[in-house]
Amino acid sequence: MEEVIQLRRDLHQYPEVGFTEFRTASKVVEILQSLGFEVIYGKDALDADSRRGVPTEEELDTAYRRAIKDGANTDILKEMEGGLTAVIGTLKGSKPGPTIAFRFDMDALPVPETSEHNHFPKANDFRSEYEGNMHACAHDAHTSIGLDFAKKMADRDFSGTLKLIFQPAEEGGRGAYSVVEKGMVDDVDKIYCFHLGLDVPLGEISGGSQGWLATTKLLSQFYGVPSHSGASPEKGKNALVGAASALLNIHSLPRHSSEQTRVNVGLLEGGTALNIVPHYAKLLIETRSTSSSVNAELEDRVKKIIHHCAEMHGLGFETEVIGSGVTFSCDEELINVVKEEAEQIEAFHNIKDYNKGGGSEDASFLINRVKENGGKGTYMLVGTTIPAPHHNQAFDIDEKVLVPTVALLKRIAIRELNSN
Amino acid sequence: MEEVIQLRRDLHQYPEVGFTEFRTASKVVEILQSLGFEVIYGKDALDADSRRGVPTEEELDTAYRRAIKDGANTDILKEMEGGLTAVIGTLKGSKPGPTIAFRFDMDALPVPETSEHNHFPKANDFRSEYEGNMHACAHDAHTSIGLDFAKKMADRDFSGTLKLIFQPAEEGGRGAYSVVEKGMVDDVDKIYCFHLGLDVPLGEISGGSQGWLATTKLLSQFYGVPSHSGASPEKGKNALVGAASALLNIHSLPRHSSEQTRVNVGLLEGGTALNIVPHYAKLLIETRSTSSSVNAELEDRVKKIIHHCAEMHGLGFETEVIGSGVTFSCDEELINVVKEEAEQIEAFHNIKDYNKGGGSEDASFLINRVKENGGKGTYMLVGTTIPAPHHNQAFDIDEKVLVPTVALLKRIAIRELNSN
Amino acid sequence: MEEVIQLRRDLHQYPEVGFTEFRTASKVVEILQSLGFEVIYGKDALDADSRRGVPTEEELDTAYRRAIKDGANTDILKEMEGGLTAVIGTLKGSKPGPTIAFRFDMDALPVPETSEHNHFPKANDFRSEYEGNMHACAHDAHTSIGLDFAKKMADRDFSGTLKLIFQPAEEGGRGAYSVVEKGMVDDVDKIYCFHLGLDVPLGEISGGSQGWLATTKLLSQFYGVPSHSGASPEKGKNALVGAASALLNIHSLPRHSSEQTRVNVGLLEGGTALNIVPHYAKLLIETRSTSSSVNAELEDRVKKIIHHCAEMHGLGFETEVIGSGVTFSCDEELINVVKEEAEQIEAFHNIKDYNKGGGSEDASFLINRVKENGGKGTYMLVGTTIPAPHHNQAFDIDEKVLVPTVALLKRIAIRELNSN
Amino acid sequence: MEEVIQLRRDLHQYPEVGFTEFRTASKVVEILQSLGFEVIYGKDALDADSRRGVPTEEELDTAYRRAIKDGANTDILKEMEGGLTAVIGTLKGSKPGPTIAFRFDMDALPVPETSEHNHFPKANDFRSEYEGNMHACAHDAHTSIGLDFAKKMADRDFSGTLKLIFQPAEEGGRGAYSVVEKGMVDDVDKIYCFHLGLDVPLGEISGGSQGWLATTKLLSQFYGVPSHSGASPEKGKNALVGAASALLNIHSLPRHSSEQTRVNVGLLEGGTALNIVPHYAKLLIETRSTSSSVNAELEDRVKKIIHHCAEMHGLGFETEVIGSGVTFSCDEELINVVKEEAEQIEAFHNIKDYNKGGGSEDASFLINRVKENGGKGTYMLVGTTIPAPHHNQAFDIDEKVLVPTVALLKRIAIRELNSN
Repeated sequence: MEEVIQLRRDLHQYPEVGFTEFRTASKVVEILQSLGFEVIYGKDALDADSRRGVPTEEELDTAYRRAIKDGANTDILKEMEGGLTAVIGTLKGSKPGPTIAFRFDMDALPVPETSEHNHFPKANDFRSEYEGNMHACAHDAHTSIGLDFAKKMADRDFSGTLKLIFQPAEEGGRGAYSVVEKGMVDDVDKIYCFHLGLDVPLGEISGGSQGWLATTKLLSQFYGVPSHSGASPEKGKNALVGAASALLNIHSLPRHSSEQTRVNVGLLEGGTALNIVPHYAKLLIETRSTSSSVNAELEDRVKKIIHHCAEMHGLGFETEVIGSGVTFSCDEELINVVKEEAEQIEAFHNIKDYNKGGGSEDASFLINRVKENGGKGTYMLVGTTIPAPHHNQAFDIDEKVLVPTVALLKRIAIRELNSN
Repeated sequence: MEEVIQLRRDLHQYPEVGFTEFRTASKVVEILQSLGFEVIYGKDALDADSRRGVPTEEELDTAYRRAIKDGANTDILKEMEGGLTAVIGTLKGSKPGPTIAFRFDMDALPVPETSEHNHFPKANDFRSEYEGNMHACAHDAHTSIGLDFAKKMADRDFSGTLKLIFQPAEEGGRGAYSVVEKGMVDDVDKIYCFHLGLDVPLGEISGGSQGWLATTKLLSQFYGVPSHSGASPEKGKNALVGAASALLNIHSLPRHSSEQTRVNVGLLEGGTALNIVPHYAKLLIETRSTSSSVNAELEDRVKKIIHHCAEMHGLGFETEVIGSGVTFSCDEELINVVKEEAEQIEAFHNIKDYNKGGGSEDASFLINRVKENGGKGTYMLVGTTIPAPHHNQAFDIDEKVLVPTVALLKRIAIRELNSN
Repeated sequence: MEEVIQLRRDLHQYPEVGFTEFRTASKVVEILQSLGFEVIYGKDALDADSRRGVPTEEELDTAYRRAIKDGANTDILKEMEGGLTAVIGTLKGSKPGPTIAFRFDMDALPVPETSEHNHFPKANDFRSEYEGNMHACAHDAHTSIGLDFAKKMADRDFSGTLKLIFQPAEEGGRGAYSVVEKGMVDDVDKIYCFHLGLDVPLGEISGGSQGWLATTKLLSQFYGVPSHSGASPEKGKNALVGAASALLNIHSLPRHSSEQTRVNVGLLEGGTALNIVPHYAKLLIETRSTSSSVNAELEDRVKKIIHHCAEMHGLGFETEVIGSGVTFSCDEELINVVKEEAEQIEAFHNIKDYNKGGGSEDASFLINRVKENGGKGTYMLVGTTIPAPHHNQAFDIDEKVLVPTVALLKRIAIRELNSN
Repeated sequence: MEEVIQLRRDLHQYPEVGFTEFRTASKVVEILQSLGFEVIYGKDALDADSRRGVPTEEELDTAYRRAIKDGANTDILKEMEGGLTAVIGTLKGSKPGPTIAFRFDMDALPVPETSEHNHFPKANDFRSEYEGNMHACAHDAHTSIGLDFAKKMADRDFSGTLKLIFQPAEEGGRGAYSVVEKGMVDDVDKIYCFHLGLDVPLGEISGGSQGWLATTKLLSQFYGVPSHSGASPEKGKNALVGAASALLNIHSLPRHSSEQTRVNVGLLEGGTALNIVPHYAKLLIETRSTSSSVNAELEDRVKKIIHHCAEMHGLGFETEVIGSGVTFSCDEELINVVKEEAEQIEAFHNIKDYNKGGGSEDASFLINRVKENGGKGTYMLVGTTIPAPHHNQAFDIDEKVLVPTVALLKRIAIRELNSN
């Protein structure tokens, strides 16, 4: 079996959600170091305070201990304590030249993986070992592609500098900003990002992508007063009645006539016991739109709904932005590079300028920063067959896409690095 | 400091919720055994399958390990594994006579205890060690009264048999039924149960109580389909929209013109992440009424709401009864015994036949079983000053009530045991 | 057929809702005048500005024209224009003495009457002529009793003054206050009020009643912005989303542990057309409680819900009190009079001090004003068989109650008037 | 003042909603007859049973009487009784040739017109005479354009047949289908439809349009049980709690990732009085989508929500389709005709192939039928300045668009009629 497939299956078994990629990231460090890359990680690779939506200490601890149990290198791990799980690998070529970056995301999702027998990872014995978590968005494949690509470049037979960014917490738009704020792409001339799947069929590839949504991720909390639900219901202030009303009203926000919009209350938790009036509730909410200003309006309306659903029942409340994504555009020059190189690879038989992104992308922060500094960026979509939508418990990819994608990245890298 | 107070403060620091009373119950076993009681516990003291609302294996494990860490006797603990936390202590007097039982409940609540400096347990350094859990319903005091009472009876200077029932999981009406089903009160002639507080002022006591509510406790679960909330919102089936609608409709059930009713959705949890359409949600729900048949109607209506809130969004669903309580009445004979004995104790200066119960009581199962067998029962309310309602994070009792209550139980026991 | 029955059936056919009792009230005027009563009506019988919940001009007009069509006396009608539909009849006895008042309510309800063949009024051809309106609360019977009673007293063979108050708009607690404010009971020494039915069986009567609920009636309005729901949904401000949220949250207000409470959104109307974002909505809401202060708290909470459900969607709003009822108590002296006189009438075989009222009563304003002036009052409940609850489309009474009730009122009146 | 402007202002003052266009339609008949058109109207111009969302008899009556009062020709009116308000005018040219149709819609909306002084119709004294109704979608202008165009064609100086379709009830997609089913366009070779405004600026015109939404219009009714809200709330079945839940759940239906969607509950009415548990409620609901199949899914989901919101509270229910619209496409040949003719008119300085429609169009039925028979159709958008969105109470048009639009229609007609 190809190494990139073996690697992907290993990562698939140990899915780690945003900022808990301890096992994954320490493995990335080990491999990159073994290949001769200069590797930056831990507090040097991201600005800890710029992270958003960091898990609780308890969640970080549990994941940390799990990574140790699963054989992660404890010396490396120590530098990542508290969720500092970004890894930046730099390899200088034999001659001077431009700095070309590639981005790979490593985090999994809190989705329980299906146990259906026809689910490929189940049938082939690499289903998730961590119940409740799953690589349901192909980041396991992205990371393994990144590592195999690193190996193919290890001979340094190029000019300039290759920079590989393995970022944490792409889901929820929480990790890239902290990498950007640490200055990790400030020296980058061009950046290539990509995603597998997204309804693009196997064999198809687009050099760029469009339709990415600006997004805001919010944590809202309601504070009420508990009381015995049998003996004194009138003395409580019910946080869940407020939260449930907020949920329905948020979903009832009007559609927009000229822009795509999205709203989602992805999580609602409140109350403690059957016989206690619920005194606390929290919601995780996101808004999205093809227009940044329409997204900002939605964010405002959500905040207003939280505010008034709380006050109508005398509840305290708090709303905090814990993630975001912005819109971005792809540079034609880079799109053309992708197209021309893809044409040299047999597996890609349908090559386009653009496909539709559909969600939001944390890479937006990386690409926009590179462009602000006068550089260029693009975001490719690489097709593969998926038996179920992204984020679904039966999601999977066709592994046939892995080898050609590594080949493509290598072709792009070599061409760009030697282009001066 | 009086021993009963010391004991209460110790128990207060280690609050254990229903079926996880590992440290508490093992302590009860040790003390009763040391006093010469014959002690039944673990699978012999309750019918495991008749328990309702048993915590998850993970929750049981965490609590079990915590109890070990806090010094619980591991030999005793082993018998309680999986949440078999009832303890029955029997002491035969020097001469034959009737069997008289007393009931004490041991479980705490999932309420976070306040850190306010004027909260007595905080000011006196016995605030909960287990963040998120609290003795907010005086069961710590009930258990310590039971143990101090046991000590006062240890000389066996009475006729007949004294039976002390330390039951788990009174909250939610989940434990007593399993004790009853194991036959633990089948030989009992009279049973005395009691509660501190419940808005009865310090110095007041009632020999009986009225107004207890029949209740049903339900766990409802919704099963949807996850999907990427940005890329394919229409492919998800949103379990939280169904659950939030159910919550509001349950609370909107009509009041009743001639009976007291209650409804409470005490907990709602659903969804996993910001950017995933929530595919799962669960609710803990209770209904109550002064009438068993009105409570049964409410239970039916709640089930109907769950059913249709699920189907309206194409969700799967399940509703399970995880606890209940029935109505019961107190026997006049026993009420009079309480009144006459209370009159002999200076601390009780306001002595009544009845006070209002206000909630539901798991003791209903014990009392009703004793009465079905031709025996008698009552449920006393013993007043004490409470700075905040039951189940509130600032709940507390005035410890002055503890010593007189032990004295009262002893007077009742001696009189009843020697009454033949 | 007894005249009182004929009269009741006539009134039943022409049900007129609060402040539109044009035909009914003009008939009352005619009959009382023909019997020699001094009759006050129109603007002299009530304070127009103190009325609450007055129908729209259009509704008043429609009802007025309908009354003319149905043969009402237009000279009398003219004085009642705009809904001035109270009638006060005074008859001085042959000798001086106290002033004794009786209250009768005349208004019907906006309930469509059933067409089932076994519905007594349908089977006997006196079903409502006004589709959508119905005497579903026995006020047709109350008024006919009042008129038959007037006839029996017309010989003036008594001391003192008999005062008959035929009030409009009892439903919703909207009419009595305006009669009180006009001073209509300022000279009254004792007032007797009554209701038929209310779950009291035929043959039973109580001299007084308890459990009447304090109540507040509210009209809330939401003001949004219309927009084309297809072409620009985001430009509208949706008044119905706010109103529907308010409705569910009002019904979700917590029950009370020691007082009876009620909440009802009796009417919700909003929006104009399928393809327009609804820019307006109104709600009619009531709160009730056995405690005036708990009712006041509910009123506050309802207002808060309206406020925040509006602001959460950027809507304007307004809430106005359009009716109310207060708690009151019955005087023992009068209860005893009723009981002693009822004993003399064969039809009453079960005679009690009190029965439970269950709703709210506009008579509370009349009784409380008489008592404030040093007088006395009571509110009797007179049993009759009802095939369906009050306010239900199949409501009816057993007419056998009518004649004995008239006889009872006469006995009470004669005794009280001659009591000095 | 130009006649077309005078006519528009007259129609603007007498806005008549769908199937009550009595005054408007009878005026159209009179004018067309006076110009020599053969005019079909009443039961001959539409299939009465194929109409959807017909107003109640009472509403039809009120509107009919109003039209008489406002001077409508009663002979013509009589043929339109019951809402048969379509008018088809046919004019044969001097020589044989093709049949070319133009469509004009006549109905107004239930929107109250603003009284702001800067509202042009208010400032110029032609604000709506019918409070609550308004021409807020430019159909007054469409009809006046149609009539002025008829006058310009009255000399019959063309080959073939000109067919003018003045349709009722375009709003809600309720009228065109009944005209189609009567066969009114079965002989048509080409059909031209148009709309003013829709965010197209003055001076701009498009020969075709895109983005029209398939739509379904639904009337849902809930049947509960009334009861006295104070005395027996538990005996009622509350239709409004079901309806409010349905409203929030309908608005909470998920957005779609690849198609435009809309949902709107345009009207909700339920309950009768403050103190009665609401026993009835009705909703007017619409769904829309750029995809007919996605619209069909939304329709299914709405029906499911209604079904289960009813059953969850034991309510009866009914859902009925009362209108619809389908997707359609415009023929390039006709688009080109429009463009070439528009170029000859100075007022149109920005001429496009397509603009975005944004709503749904009843004309879809007319165009699709013509195309099914082998003919061709298009739907032009003619820009004009609008101070507020369509369906808003401050909507208006810039009348400068009227004369050039008439000129354009004439140019198109002459060219097409003489094209053989």
